[in-house]
Amino acid sequence: MARVTDTETEGALLPEPAPGEIQLVAVLSALADPIRLRIVRELADAAGPLSCTALELPVSKSTCTHHFRVLRESGVIRQQRVGTARMSSLRTAELGERFPGLLASVLSAAADGASG
Amino acid sequence: MARVTDTETEGALLPEPAPGEIQLVAVLSALADPIRLRIVRELADAAGPLSCTALELPVSKSTCTHHFRVLRESGVIRQQRVGTARMSSLRTAELGERFPGLLASVLSAAADGASG
Repeated sequence: MARVTDTETEGALLPEPAPGEIQLVAVLSALADPIRLRIVRELADAAGPLSCTALELPVSKSTCTHHFRVLRESGVIRQQRVGTARMSSLRTAELGERFPGLLASVLSAAADGASG
Repeated sequence: MARVTDTETEGALLPEPAPGEIQLVAVLSALADPIRLRIVRELADAAGPLSCTALELPVSKSTCTHHFRVLRESGVIRQQRVGTARMSSLRTAELGERFPGLLASVLSAAADGASG
């Protein structure tokens, strides 16, 4: 992980919906994609925030960036600038409060290999 | 819609995935729409199977038929021919076994008015 050196933009969060503005349709739509489900699963299993490139997905970097943006704009993940990278993490607690049980049931279902 | 006059097709189920073939991405995608979420909520609250027209949705009949088809083909609902109608019901038990907690959490979230 890159070291944080600049206080201006370093550590800044990219735009995201406030917890109360997270919409169910947007979250379901964001999760309704095999690559994005895989990203969410890997973030759920990770010890800390991950960058796009850390996930070794079978897509181009720009496609990866796109999928992370869809997840962030729906409220599923949070992205923070760290050096030249965008470090991403699941908004597990906020999602759990907004839509109790939803993320957990999706992660459980995806882990069962039914994410087709 | 064509009139059903043949006893062969009365009561017949329209094509649907077997429980073990229901895919998470397809279910999430089917649910990621305000009209389809409303259909699913109304079916969940209904005492029995409902026809498209019984729901009084703010869409044309052909659009309604389309939404029901997406829900059926993903495995969320079952449709049965009864006379000239297609009676629809949620596959609650099969979904609950395939993806524990998913439908319940979506219905609960949708009921909170966050499905916008």
